[in-house]
Amino acid sequence: MSSEDGRKMVRFSVVSFGPPGSSLAVIGSCASLGNWSLEKAVSMKPRLANARLQSEPDFHWADVDIPEAGSERIEYKFVERGNDGVKWEELGGHQNRVLELEAQEDGQAVLLPVVRFAEPGGGESDHTARFYQGVKERGEISIRKVLEQLFVGSCPRHRSHIDQLKSLGVSVVVNFQTEEDCKRNCVSGIGMEEDPMAVSRVYDSKGMQYIWMPTFDMSTDGRAQMLPQASFLFGQLIRRGHTVYSHCNAGVGRSVAAACGYLTFFLGLSLRQMQHVMASSRPVAYFDFEAMERARPHYQALFGVEEFLEKDGKCKEEALALL
Amino acid sequence: MSSEDGRKMVRFSVVSFGPPGSSLAVIGSCASLGNWSLEKAVSMKPRLANARLQSEPDFHWADVDIPEAGSERIEYKFVERGNDGVKWEELGGHQNRVLELEAQEDGQAVLLPVVRFAEPGGGESDHTARFYQGVKERGEISIRKVLEQLFVGSCPRHRSHIDQLKSLGVSVVVNFQTEEDCKRNCVSGIGMEEDPMAVSRVYDSKGMQYIWMPTFDMSTDGRAQMLPQASFLFGQLIRRGHTVYSHCNAGVGRSVAAACGYLTFFLGLSLRQMQHVMASSRPVAYFDFEAMERARPHYQALFGVEEFLEKDGKCKEEALALL
Repeated sequence: MSSEDGRKMVRFSVVSFGPPGSSLAVIGSCASLGNWSLEKAVSMKPRLANARLQSEPDFHWADVDIPEAGSERIEYKFVERGNDGVKWEELGGHQNRVLELEAQEDGQAVLLPVVRFAEPGGGESDHTARFYQGVKERGEISIRKVLEQLFVGSCPRHRSHIDQLKSLGVSVVVNFQTEEDCKRNCVSGIGMEEDPMAVSRVYDSKGMQYIWMPTFDMSTDGRAQMLPQASFLFGQLIRRGHTVYSHCNAGVGRSVAAACGYLTFFLGLSLRQMQHVMASSRPVAYFDFEAMERARPHYQALFGVEEFLEKDGKCKEEALALL
Repeated sequence: MSSEDGRKMVRFSVVSFGPPGSSLAVIGSCASLGNWSLEKAVSMKPRLANARLQSEPDFHWADVDIPEAGSERIEYKFVERGNDGVKWEELGGHQNRVLELEAQEDGQAVLLPVVRFAEPGGGESDHTARFYQGVKERGEISIRKVLEQLFVGSCPRHRSHIDQLKSLGVSVVVNFQTEEDCKRNCVSGIGMEEDPMAVSRVYDSKGMQYIWMPTFDMSTDGRAQMLPQASFLFGQLIRRGHTVYSHCNAGVGRSVAAACGYLTFFLGLSLRQMQHVMASSRPVAYFDFEAMERARPHYQALFGVEEFLEKDGKCKEEALALL
């Protein structure tokens, strides 16, 4: 794994909406990646597997020892093997992906950026909409555990969803929906269509805490504005022993951003480490790196670099152990 | 001042919109309060005096040694002496106020509730509207210092108001306006009518931090919901050396509530002490004691009782020294 002889352990990761039963593999232009021979493609492991919701993507990964790294240009792509045969990524003008290895800490697999399986018409917003419409139409809640004390997901739509959160040990629900979001996507039967705060009385009755941080949707400005205080608040709550559920409408954008902020600003993970921790536990996550970069100096100016307490250190170890 | 012989030092306080040049006095049914003789009424000191804005009320107070306390029923009221003569409070059905002394720490003046000078048509919302319309029509900003590191006031309406905040040492502006509030009451010439977050770029350019916590106006529910995290955030920012400006539209309700939460939940002042500290620095303040009581158990469940750092202790001493 030393870089002197060019050998590197490299982690390939891809998020895919491929149907249940399909599996992903990585294939490429060097011997370690099968020299474009499908029989020798490297199989990837799915993270959620049977735990996936019908409309939810999965996170697939494989660690590959690449002795050729550094000595030649390596191209690769992902393939999906299902009942209908093999589906290759369609990368448009860019026929293949190119392996680019950035320096990372010795002794760890090099983490490549987490990408989405490339297919025509499969843009970011299509994926999110597809996932979210499914959750909405079926009246589901999509809850994913990131760390022992941190869950991320979609908004509760029924009282039973709140019971479900409680049974998972959630003690604080942090909601990033705007007032309009609350009215349109809400817990049925409690009057939220009129009063977005009606849900706070349900949490009260369950002995759960509820924090509302209204944040614009689909907006880097909105996420950058919310990130410093939300990240800090998550850290302070988790440090005090709380288990936090972060939600917005779908649990893709705003709620993910806040959890990413906690992992990065509060626990000190690198952006790449954060992306792997988050994408592997919540494959549908959207990463707003621009908002993260814009929020970072504000976080530091507001809160400085937090001194780690024992509790925070454990959470960081837990996160790194997921890599 | 011991309670055994019935002598007590009692602090009378009243907030009044009386015109500049007028002064307040307290008068009542015992010798210490002049036995209803105007010549012997006890003059009160104004807090803001010439620093008042045209539409802003003042806080008036007087400490009175009352030997009769405990031995007889004492009635009193406030009178305003101005160019047009003397104006007595009009208490409607209740002709007079009745002195009710609650047990308080020995060695301190007993703090009576801060009340408003009672006059016909002078309800809470009239006072607030009167103040606020004045500020709005004249394009003013009304900034009041509560503690060295905590200011409360109305929204900035011009870029020069932001410069004014900076010159006062404010490093973090916390805004409780809703999106609609921002659009209707905003800094002119920067496009906030369209984009409520336009102001964040102005703060950026001045090297100031900006936190937006949208909160429903005129709503005890809204204030109770916001109070725990806002109070905690104020404490954490001030502990880190920041000077916070808390604003909403008028600087009467939401922004005052958050500052009250900091004084009470974070610094540990009693509600009465908090009211005196706040009303004396910002006489137009509205006190939502119901929201405070509802928020208290949530604050404790979320954040527990903070351990005081040296910095917090100093802030608490500073607050108590104002009494």
